[in-house]
Amino acid sequence: TNSVYTGLPTTIFEEMSRLAAQYGAINLGQGFPDVDGPEDIRREAAEILISGPNQYPRMLGVPELRAAVAEAWDRFQGIRVDPETEVLITSGATEALSDAINALVEEGDEVVMIEPLYDCYMPLVERAGGIARRVRITPPQWKLDPDALRAAFSARTKAIIINNPMNPAGKVFTSEELELIAGLAQEFDAYVIADEVYEHLVFAGHRHISMLTVPGMRERTVAIGSAGKSFSLTGWKIGYVTAAPALLDPVAKAHQFATFTTPPNLQLAIAHALRKDLSYFTDLSADLQAKRDRLADGCRKLGFGVMESAGTYFLTLDTAPLGLEGDDVTLARRMTIEAGVTAVPVSAFYGSDAPDRFLRLCFCKKNEVLDEALARIGRWL
Amino acid sequence: TNSVYTGLPTTIFEEMSRLAAQYGAINLGQGFPDVDGPEDIRREAAEILISGPNQYPRMLGVPELRAAVAEAWDRFQGIRVDPETEVLITSGATEALSDAINALVEEGDEVVMIEPLYDCYMPLVERAGGIARRVRITPPQWKLDPDALRAAFSARTKAIIINNPMNPAGKVFTSEELELIAGLAQEFDAYVIADEVYEHLVFAGHRHISMLTVPGMRERTVAIGSAGKSFSLTGWKIGYVTAAPALLDPVAKAHQFATFTTPPNLQLAIAHALRKDLSYFTDLSADLQAKRDRLADGCRKLGFGVMESAGTYFLTLDTAPLGLEGDDVTLARRMTIEAGVTAVPVSAFYGSDAPDRFLRLCFCKKNEVLDEALARIGRWL
Ligand SMILES: CSCCC(=O)C(=O)O
Ligand SMILES: CSCCC(=O)C(=O)O
Repeated sequence: TNSVYTGLPTTIFEEMSRLAAQYGAINLGQGFPDVDGPEDIRREAAEILISGPNQYPRMLGVPELRAAVAEAWDRFQGIRVDPETEVLITSGATEALSDAINALVEEGDEVVMIEPLYDCYMPLVERAGGIARRVRITPPQWKLDPDALRAAFSARTKAIIINNPMNPAGKVFTSEELELIAGLAQEFDAYVIADEVYEHLVFAGHRHISMLTVPGMRERTVAIGSAGKSFSLTGWKIGYVTAAPALLDPVAKAHQFATFTTPPNLQLAIAHALRKDLSYFTDLSADLQAKRDRLADGCRKLGFGVMESAGTYFLTLDTAPLGLEGDDVTLARRMTIEAGVTAVPVSAFYGSDAPDRFLRLCFCKKNEVLDEALARIGRWL
Repeated sequence: TNSVYTGLPTTIFEEMSRLAAQYGAINLGQGFPDVDGPEDIRREAAEILISGPNQYPRMLGVPELRAAVAEAWDRFQGIRVDPETEVLITSGATEALSDAINALVEEGDEVVMIEPLYDCYMPLVERAGGIARRVRITPPQWKLDPDALRAAFSARTKAIIINNPMNPAGKVFTSEELELIAGLAQEFDAYVIADEVYEHLVFAGHRHISMLTVPGMRERTVAIGSAGKSFSLTGWKIGYVTAAPALLDPVAKAHQFATFTTPPNLQLAIAHALRKDLSYFTDLSADLQAKRDRLADGCRKLGFGVMESAGTYFLTLDTAPLGLEGDDVTLARRMTIEAGVTAVPVSAFYGSDAPDRFLRLCFCKKNEVLDEALARIGRWL
């Protein structure tokens, strides 16, 4: 069997969710909300299961959803996108990442990625025949070192993957940082795979700027969005890819042979979700910001170091000030079993030489759940 | 961009569907039924969208559906399968094929496949770094030549892909043929990727025998099924993979990074569909058999050569007896535009040196649609 996949562990998110279930712990590990997204959208998706269509939709996605994705680009980022030739619907953002990597990377190509990183980037690049080149940002400010970034590029660089807003760090890239990355991509003739699934989960004082809007980047960027994250329906697995026609074409071919299509009822309902009033999106981020503050304040009072979180629904805690024994993996297990609260060890987001004192907590949960988690951790400490 | 995917055409099925829509033709090209599957199943899936769960299910699939897949193995093929360690749910059988190929094939491995073949096999194997070795079966009987098959195996053979029942040929493999393939797989230490998506669409005088049941093959076979095909819900994109634990593990890792999960409401509804009374399955195949006969008789009367179809919902026609001008691609286009009936040119199912006189028609359509299609072709000829 193939050496990239053989012996790989099950994703840490699922592993921690299973442990949480086993010990009846509050699950602040895997990133998913505990309140489902809009009921009108779910009702529409339900009605289409009865009325149809229930057969293969277009390979690129249903035209209504591709049009809605194009409109959203205009509404949220002020750019024009052609729904016919520049938008592809996938079975979740993970499939979109897989398609983009399979479409772009050839044997021996290097792909730059920023650490801590989402756990599928490295195996997907390696399975595609590529070599991962990692650059690290460091807490608490998660600053990007321009020299380290430049040093990761070479004549063999085919692409850089950026996750903006960034999981687990909660970092939202500034326009200066995006221009730095764009400049390097142009200088080294590389593509940018812009994983922007948390685009609508951004907090006061920060703004999500898509790499697709950075001057000169339209022809080199594959931008990826997620209905699951934007509409609190992570089980629906609807992703969208936006790229210039010549770049979208091979990504669509990868999709054609990865899943071919995505359920039409879910696609049609998400077309309406994307057209919701602006208030839906501002309420979503305001609500999450309040939850971030609630959890961050509580954790600070308990003595954790709390890293900045400018976006996503994740908070990174430094356990060092507490002087607890054991590395992050041990602590995440112990906190699940002994305190009844599950986190994700941040070392899982590193390819090697990981720091071992950080835990990630997910805050898209009911206030009473967050409060109870804080109380449990407090009693445990 | 990667050379395997760059410049590939859009799948012939979609291309012909688009042409059919453009000219208002009856679409007997792409394989999907014109009547949606069971309403009770669709209602259940709809209710779960309202009640939940709508968040990430388990990476391997919801336990209810994995249990139902295991029960179906017992019920239809008489073998015991462990739902916890031997079953994986994917976002359609195409994803399952992609996962299996990515999990098994390494750079330079050879993969044997039988032609005419489904159009994703070759690009998936090549993208995974493998080399396709094709063996041809020939109409009208679609016999497998044992010597040609043996000649396709070598010390570098990693796997053979068989599609049983076979699209487009409608061939259902006999136990002798399966044992021949199994013997070669054992002799050359190869895996079998058994694409069995049409397992329940088999006609009188034939029986689907899964490769998983052939003695000695349990440890080397990855079997793939499809809820879309078995329940006439092709848009739902639910596939299932069954394999021994050591073989399922890398396939599940490929799935983890390809789509991660599949919508939970559709999975839960299909768990009930798989447990339907035997009469559901016998009615499905009896109904399709009557449609096959209706279309085959009509086509014979019009002067086409009609190839045997023992399973699937496809019929292959030989246009040679009619002495029409042009190859199959030209004829498929002309028949769409001039007659208002769309077929798929069978040359699309070959890697090279394709025969150019065969058309594939899909017969999972209402009787009046089949009759009207026959009438239109009759007027055109
Ligand atoms: C593969 S689980 C996905 C959840 C997630 O994005 C996360 O927890 O980081
Ligand atoms: C990729 S379209 C799928 C339909 C099908 O299986 C076929 O028409 O052969």
